[in-house]
Amino acid sequence: MSADTVISLNLATTRPQWGFAEAVDGCLRAGITAISPWRDQIEAIGLDEAARIVKANKLQVTGVCRGGMFPGVDAADRQKRIDDNLRAIDQAAALNADCLVLVVGGLPGSSRDLPGARQQVTDGIAAMLPHAKASGVKIAIEPLHPMYAADRACVNTVDQALDICEKLGETVGVALDVYHIWWDPNLANAIARAGRMKRIFAHHICDWLVPTKDMLLDRGMMGDGVIDLKAIRKMIEEAGFHGPQEVEIFSQDNWWKRPGDEVLQVIKERVATVC
Amino acid sequence: MSADTVISLNLATTRPQWGFAEAVDGCLRAGITAISPWRDQIEAIGLDEAARIVKANKLQVTGVCRGGMFPGVDAADRQKRIDDNLRAIDQAAALNADCLVLVVGGLPGSSRDLPGARQQVTDGIAAMLPHAKASGVKIAIEPLHPMYAADRACVNTVDQALDICEKLGETVGVALDVYHIWWDPNLANAIARAGRMKRIFAHHICDWLVPTKDMLLDRGMMGDGVIDLKAIRKMIEEAGFHGPQEVEIFSQDNWWKRPGDEVLQVIKERVATVC
Repeated sequence: MSADTVISLNLATTRPQWGFAEAVDGCLRAGITAISPWRDQIEAIGLDEAARIVKANKLQVTGVCRGGMFPGVDAADRQKRIDDNLRAIDQAAALNADCLVLVVGGLPGSSRDLPGARQQVTDGIAAMLPHAKASGVKIAIEPLHPMYAADRACVNTVDQALDICEKLGETVGVALDVYHIWWDPNLANAIARAGRMKRIFAHHICDWLVPTKDMLLDRGMMGDGVIDLKAIRKMIEEAGFHGPQEVEIFSQDNWWKRPGDEVLQVIKERVATVC
Repeated sequence: MSADTVISLNLATTRPQWGFAEAVDGCLRAGITAISPWRDQIEAIGLDEAARIVKANKLQVTGVCRGGMFPGVDAADRQKRIDDNLRAIDQAAALNADCLVLVVGGLPGSSRDLPGARQQVTDGIAAMLPHAKASGVKIAIEPLHPMYAADRACVNTVDQALDICEKLGETVGVALDVYHIWWDPNLANAIARAGRMKRIFAHHICDWLVPTKDMLLDRGMMGDGVIDLKAIRKMIEEAGFHGPQEVEIFSQDNWWKRPGDEVLQVIKERVATVC
């Protein structure tokens, strides 16, 4: 671990163990001073109280998860989704978050029109952008692994996300999650491009297990899988991003079953050795 | 279904129901005269008998599945894998197959070196290529979905496969399986490029189910999922490939449990309506 390594805890990592306040207490016990909460966790405690806790403890909020889910079956559905994103912007602004992370959504209804869904994503971000800019909130598109293209996110590579960023301007960037992008044969070039564009807004880590038993909830702790975390970190740092490594692990059969304090200790050990 | 639509049955689609000879009988009952067998199915009946059946019934063999699996933990391991590919070439040649399909392999042993594994794939194909050329066997790299990058195939996009093809010459092309490539934001360009290179050697179809319950054995029948099969077929035909659509469905909880004749009837109906 280099001297400047900083960990952020994505609060999904301890979702079953801890609510917002408990997670912050756990982080502070572990010496972790950056978090990335989910909106349901913020809403459970209330936005004002969440903001008070962040401010009182001088926490860095590396992201708010999540906006997005733009594709809809009709205009009214799409507008409802945009409206929800406007509320997400307000939450990110209240927490002074580094960015609002977008999981952009997949195919709406029974559609098979992937190019159409992708256009709806670009249009949706464009529609929320004025309010985001006025609120000082940066937008981070998170390209998701292609196995989620149908039902979670039809933006599936870093380059594809950057193409959208180029259309929408400098306050729209990318959240680079190793789980989603590690396999990409063009990864090094794409990360370098993101750096030149100054659009890397977040760096998420976990690991890809072999075998992966569940497509959503079987992410690994860093070091337990096959991702070359040090190599990707080097790409991201050489591209100019030196923010915290945000640990985001969905693990229904393992890490979600362990005490939160234990999870944080293992995270610290692994970040110090394999990241 | 246009007048020239031809179906090939990948024999994995009826693997639990039928061996090689039974599958051929089933195909002939259904009016299907093209097949793509797996090597274990060929070996179970014997290569000579398989070749006799193919010749006696004037079957088109759209591919032999599969060579590949090149990355190894050391030089001896890699050579053993190349030797196995040489045997696969002999099998493909004996059946007069349109191509030998390669599933190229993933990370060897406990390696996290994805670029290294990819280099081993290029080197492995290069090593088998003289025997393939001498035998008149074309090699089709099948880019596999990125969710298989670790354990099955580290070639994960059409463009990445074509980059390898460019290095190795005109007898090395691609097998385009919609299941693996449908999500690719660059798909249309990549298929057009493959066409310009005259390297489309096979076209595999099935469907992507939502939800997908198993990462390997839950492929859908055409029409039951979200892939725009007609759009991809149009790309492939406009790129100059007009060979059979090869149906390859791994479906442990559905199609593998139905009578083979029923599966073939449904395939014919679906190819006539949604492909």
